Amino acid sequence: MTTHTSVPAYAAPSAKAPLERITVQRREPGEHDVLIEIKYSGICHSDIHTARGEWGEGGHFPIVPGHEIAGVVAAVGAGVTRHRVGDRVGVGCFVDSCRECDSCKAGLQQYCTGKLGMVGTYGRAGRDGEVTQGGYSTHIVVDENYVLRIPDSVPLDAAAPLLCAGITLYSPLAHWQAGPGKKVAIVGLGGLGHMGVKIAHAMGAEVTVLSQSLRKQEDGLRLGADHYYATSDPATFETLADSFDLIVNTVSADLDLDAYLGLLRTDGTLVQVGAPERPLPVSPFALITRRKSLAGSMIGGIPETQEMLDFCGAHGIGAEFELIRADQINEAYERVLASDVRYRFVIDAATI
Amino acid sequence: MTTHTSVPAYAAPSAKAPLERITVQRREPGEHDVLIEIKYSGICHSDIHTARGEWGEGGHFPIVPGHEIAGVVAAVGAGVTRHRVGDRVGVGCFVDSCRECDSCKAGLQQYCTGKLGMVGTYGRAGRDGEVTQGGYSTHIVVDENYVLRIPDSVPLDAAAPLLCAGITLYSPLAHWQAGPGKKVAIVGLGGLGHMGVKIAHAMGAEVTVLSQSLRKQEDGLRLGADHYYATSDPATFETLADSFDLIVNTVSADLDLDAYLGLLRTDGTLVQVGAPERPLPVSPFALITRRKSLAGSMIGGIPETQEMLDFCGAHGIGAEFELIRADQINEAYERVLASDVRYRFVIDAATI
Repeated sequence: MTTHTSVPAYAAPSAKAPLERITVQRREPGEHDVLIEIKYSGICHSDIHTARGEWGEGGHFPIVPGHEIAGVVAAVGAGVTRHRVGDRVGVGCFVDSCRECDSCKAGLQQYCTGKLGMVGTYGRAGRDGEVTQGGYSTHIVVDENYVLRIPDSVPLDAAAPLLCAGITLYSPLAHWQAGPGKKVAIVGLGGLGHMGVKIAHAMGAEVTVLSQSLRKQEDGLRLGADHYYATSDPATFETLADSFDLIVNTVSADLDLDAYLGLLRTDGTLVQVGAPERPLPVSPFALITRRKSLAGSMIGGIPETQEMLDFCGAHGIGAEFELIRADQINEAYERVLASDVRYRFVIDAATI
Repeated sequence: MTTHTSVPAYAAPSAKAPLERITVQRREPGEHDVLIEIKYSGICHSDIHTARGEWGEGGHFPIVPGHEIAGVVAAVGAGVTRHRVGDRVGVGCFVDSCRECDSCKAGLQQYCTGKLGMVGTYGRAGRDGEVTQGGYSTHIVVDENYVLRIPDSVPLDAAAPLLCAGITLYSPLAHWQAGPGKKVAIVGLGGLGHMGVKIAHAMGAEVTVLSQSLRKQEDGLRLGADHYYATSDPATFETLADSFDLIVNTVSADLDLDAYLGLLRTDGTLVQVGAPERPLPVSPFALITRRKSLAGSMIGGIPETQEMLDFCGAHGIGAEFELIRADQINEAYERVLASDVRYRFVIDAATI
């Protein structure tokens, strides 16, 4: 029988209630488990959807959100070979998967098609039947195969948001080959978008930010963008017609996808990483007349997440963030919803 | 000044009128032109849209449709090096393009972004300002660079439909790498779809036909399909969930794209080659959760069209067709609209 230890955490007690301090049970590390002392945890928009019961996970309250976790290994199981006590490590959006399906074998655990499926870092029944609890906490226990190494050159606080926001942008940029000679647009300069600008720039692409207004233009250029356009200005869509090899759309609002498809060159791809809830209309003609693609991408697998962290280490890339105390989480949620954050809130786990 | 010769043709005199025999002017072959004695001309659904003024080409009546042209070289200009009198040749959906843009330089003339653009084989002002007239005729004059060689092993009548239907399917199958180990679905078993089945099978892919009913199942299997399913049966979408690497949709009707996206495996692509007139709703979640793509593809460039013809020659592939006299064209149009053809009408140009 697995024994457990109580640790402090911030949780949503129910769908409508603000987050509050509770204690949650973490299992004692098993043979292949790593006990992580959490130092920092980023706040992702998905946390808010889940904490408020907007994604239908109903029934798993109280729920501890948080899947942008950075910390230090505090203990390891007897069989652990990948991590040692004292290592700087991270945990992202999932903590297990079936390990047997084609996706898992290919290192694309985020697209696991096995019966277990991708086990989200919070709110999801795992292999042992226990519902996972996330990173707004002081400690977490995770199988060693789902724990990432954080390079020494990236501070842990700036590293935390890489585990979701970073990989969410890195994966499509790498998959669709952003790099020298490629023109890449990032739609939206928020928590996701600002990582896209930094990473695409570091990959050597020519980077354009497409933002609703020019309000954050100075930031965008500082972060690595070569160009910055306001999508509220209809002229933008004329000026930039047939311009981009790749557009990564981080905006979850209902955009006019046909308008953005018009900005792609022949063989260009528009990748959705934000997920609007409703279907969006797409004109097949917009795709057919220049062999364009509309695609989607979701975070990244374990090998690619490690590759992303190493890439960020080599290029000195971390998130831009505002450090908060745990008792500011509810206020931070409101500010995320109001797009009032540059560009990610990171919770100091010492304050939990 | 260019001189002209009158040749017989079948034309739509206006948007609402049936096609009738007229004469059209063909320019005398210039230095780089090829005069082709047309032997056969396929009937494409696009011909009907254009002849009936449904695609807004208004003003170019009378119009001679036809962009699936097979014939023999009757004369060549002094500077022609690519073709000789007596050669078996074909002409597809376009007869010129700017030749200077990135697409043209890459051999993707169908996606020409130059000022001239892709000059359609009929109903489109060309480089000299004259409006092109298509293949329902006895002769046509085309620049040598837009004339294809038809392999000896493909009869000219069966070759004609390759110039549009064949390349329309070959191009996406080649671009998205249909081949051994790949599961490919072809949606719709009509003029386009039947070419897709033959070509994908010859490429070595495992081929499934997704057709509204099982009415043509025997044909589909004979043409090379490994499996055949009726899309009118909801069970099909459960049975085949997560099955295909590539789906090519030849149906122009409004399909439930999300349902078809559900049939793709991780990293799979649904390619539209038929073009519904209205935007279709797509759920970003359907794309994001397995890195799927919705793409479009339009015919193929000159090098790839030649590659397709050579491929068909090597594999003994031609279209399945019903040969008609020119005075049956109007009746054939009605039958195309009623999906009453297996699988392409080909006009015997000797009857024009």
